Amino acid sequence: MKFKTSITDVKKDGSEVMRGEKLTDLIKEKTFAEVIYFILKGQMPDESQLTMFNAILTSVIDHGPATASAMNARISASAKNDMHVALAAGILGFGPRHGVAVESAMQFLMKNKENKNVSQTLQEMKERKEYVPGYGHKVFDTDPRATALFALAKETGIAGDYCALAEAVRSALNESSSKSLPINVDGAIAAILCDIGFDAALGSGIFLIGRVPGLVAHIHEEMTNDTGIRRLDSTEVEYKNA
Amino acid sequence: MKFKTSITDVKKDGSEVMRGEKLTDLIKEKTFAEVIYFILKGQMPDESQLTMFNAILTSVIDHGPATASAMNARISASAKNDMHVALAAGILGFGPRHGVAVESAMQFLMKNKENKNVSQTLQEMKERKEYVPGYGHKVFDTDPRATALFALAKETGIAGDYCALAEAVRSALNESSSKSLPINVDGAIAAILCDIGFDAALGSGIFLIGRVPGLVAHIHEEMTNDTGIRRLDSTEVEYKNA
Amino acid sequence: MKFKTSITDVKKDGSEVMRGEKLTDLIKEKTFAEVIYFILKGQMPDESQLTMFNAILTSVIDHGPATASAMNARISASAKNDMHVALAAGILGFGPRHGVAVESAMQFLMKNKENKNVSQTLQEMKERKEYVPGYGHKVFDTDPRATALFALAKETGIAGDYCALAEAVRSALNESSSKSLPINVDGAIAAILCDIGFDAALGSGIFLIGRVPGLVAHIHEEMTNDTGIRRLDSTEVEYKNA
Amino acid sequence: MKFKTSITDVKKDGSEVMRGEKLTDLIKEKTFAEVIYFILKGQMPDESQLTMFNAILTSVIDHGPATASAMNARISASAKNDMHVALAAGILGFGPRHGVAVESAMQFLMKNKENKNVSQTLQEMKERKEYVPGYGHKVFDTDPRATALFALAKETGIAGDYCALAEAVRSALNESSSKSLPINVDGAIAAILCDIGFDAALGSGIFLIGRVPGLVAHIHEEMTNDTGIRRLDSTEVEYKNA
Repeated sequence: MKFKTSITDVKKDGSEVMRGEKLTDLIKEKTFAEVIYFILKGQMPDESQLTMFNAILTSVIDHGPATASAMNARISASAKNDMHVALAAGILGFGPRHGVAVESAMQFLMKNKENKNVSQTLQEMKERKEYVPGYGHKVFDTDPRATALFALAKETGIAGDYCALAEAVRSALNESSSKSLPINVDGAIAAILCDIGFDAALGSGIFLIGRVPGLVAHIHEEMTNDTGIRRLDSTEVEYKNA
Repeated sequence: MKFKTSITDVKKDGSEVMRGEKLTDLIKEKTFAEVIYFILKGQMPDESQLTMFNAILTSVIDHGPATASAMNARISASAKNDMHVALAAGILGFGPRHGVAVESAMQFLMKNKENKNVSQTLQEMKERKEYVPGYGHKVFDTDPRATALFALAKETGIAGDYCALAEAVRSALNESSSKSLPINVDGAIAAILCDIGFDAALGSGIFLIGRVPGLVAHIHEEMTNDTGIRRLDSTEVEYKNA
Repeated sequence: MKFKTSITDVKKDGSEVMRGEKLTDLIKEKTFAEVIYFILKGQMPDESQLTMFNAILTSVIDHGPATASAMNARISASAKNDMHVALAAGILGFGPRHGVAVESAMQFLMKNKENKNVSQTLQEMKERKEYVPGYGHKVFDTDPRATALFALAKETGIAGDYCALAEAVRSALNESSSKSLPINVDGAIAAILCDIGFDAALGSGIFLIGRVPGLVAHIHEEMTNDTGIRRLDSTEVEYKNA
Repeated sequence: MKFKTSITDVKKDGSEVMRGEKLTDLIKEKTFAEVIYFILKGQMPDESQLTMFNAILTSVIDHGPATASAMNARISASAKNDMHVALAAGILGFGPRHGVAVESAMQFLMKNKENKNVSQTLQEMKERKEYVPGYGHKVFDTDPRATALFALAKETGIAGDYCALAEAVRSALNESSSKSLPINVDGAIAAILCDIGFDAALGSGIFLIGRVPGLVAHIHEEMTNDTGIRRLDSTEVEYKNA
């Protein structure tokens, strides 16, 4: 089995070169967010891109214990698993309905970049019962994280064609929808990452990098306030013979 | 099932308060590394702590495709799994022999904080064939990442009793060992996190937060340079009926 | 959070009723394969169905260490993880290219049950570059496991419309393909499970139940013959700065 | 990377030899439980061993949706993940407090095989606050699954020194304990597997093989009765700023 890579070269003396830079230089001179951007994109961010990238990662860092990912992480920790095991369990709580939407939202925006008639596309998607990723939220009418990110995207000058397209889609969607469909945080991140020039296949990855610290905090809290292994009580299970 | 938490409060209007701060303020005003430190420790870092924390996270961001975690991540990606699935596979490639040592190294240092006779403790551990976590490396004689981190710990004034203890342990270990046992990156991170005042139970978690972007980069590279599902060839498997 | 279930009722005295039967009766009176069939399908198998179900599960029990799933399981075990952790890692080595195809093959067969013109459908799929699940193998020209399963399906009388359809598809596919496309083990299992009357959404699940013992055997072997944590050597990694 | 194995030899023509037997012969002639026993132990079971092995696997096949493993599996499925992904999530809900105890119970029994003074050993463990694996249950006063397994172990003649030791430990434990400590299903399986002659390192693995079909059934039920992604409601989360 052979792997070709252009990410990191670990030399025989233990030194490492990452995307052409010495790792020890990056350790001394760069912040973590810059190095994340660099390892994913192969270029260092300029000041605006870095501001935006920090904001994106922070915006998804946690969303409380009620989410599928945080529950899974805490349940696994409650069975006395190690941190890395509970973290993997938490990550398997993400899925097409949770977190992974950044990627599909980026693909949707890229596919419709040149689309002159978005309303019609949305109408056709509605007829095929296809879902437009990046809009709507199970709980909120507006998503304050999306609002904060778009404000910063305008301020830094990052907001471009994709942010405009995301807003046009939102406007068109809400014309024909009975319930309010705000751009959610996945949709906002998708539009901004497209404007920065990230590959759509990195959408979920960037979301996950942002959220992992939140999962670690939840696992640590579960370990610290150890209340034994999690179980549903009898009122939470209903058995009915089929 | 009920979860008590002091991490994040998601309010009914969608706003979030994290460790007492509004999430939208953190998005606007703080870097990702600051917010990671804050969500884990409940306090914002001062300038020295932040410099050190950025350096720690960067130092472990990747270690090439030859490691158990990167291989698992790429193999899972080669089976056409989504990013979050391959990431979880990669994280399950960590273990007591890979990454998780930061935590046991912190526990060892904390347990021996007041130890006046480290040499004797090490001698007793050797007799019981117990391993001292944070020293030695399968490949290197010195670990350039550890050297860079300790230099920065001195420069920022973070290096304190635990960094001194880690060095004393290294010195004592090498008196009685036939092969060179440098402090490795796990050991250096452990000593510095102890001097900052982090809980030992967060050792692996901080390592994992640092490494996840590297795994994401490897998964993305595997997806992009898709060479089909990974298999060992016939020269790499040897069958012998027991 | 509330779960409605018709699988198992755990009573307050510790007794369990599964699909309407007392668990202690099943323990005494039934084989494991019967109880698997029963928990999945809600009915006990007749003798032919049971023979076939045993054969299906056995046919996928292992496929050697060179597969993505076995590699992932063994690599995770080599990092000194527990059995359940290494097993989860192994399972994340399955994916759309490995194992999961049983499910898509069942969906394909069910969708084309009434199709009078399979050749044309296959031609259209070819034009859309869609892949027909359950045919072809990376390594073999014929799949002896598929042959053995179909022989048994005929012998037991289980082989019905779906097995006939699977064969018709194979024949049509090979008329237009330059390389031999045998029905592989996934395709054979799919056709037979359709003829028994299983839900397509259980296709991967049945495959996984069959393969888990093989993964456990590999993990146990890796733990027993412990050769340290797995790493690629320097000849297996090629670094090229992009 | 090279793997030595004595499990399965996949030949160039696609035929497989497992532990010295042709896979196609096993498919035709053996039941799934026999082949599981064979792949793990390298020998075919005799009739008593097979009866017992079937009973052990059946006894742990499911324990309802309230357990950590079933919850994790269903939560992951509710995020719209594939079967194999949700199954891995479920398996990460096991841990030292759930399922994995079979292995530690086997180790405990093997270590005390020749122990003439079990009561004193238990007293010393109590003083060191060490837990005796395989006894007690969070919910039940007696474990009907353990009772059924021991009855069958006597009937088949499998019950030997280890079953006797497990009972002696139970008796001694309950002399000094204020609450009833029955042998639980993990403890019963451990004693019986020791009497059959299984390696302790296979304890968790056999438990997991038995439970995987239950997890598959729960995931399938969650997919079929799809009620959207799982979330705790606001009464189930309590936020308190630390």
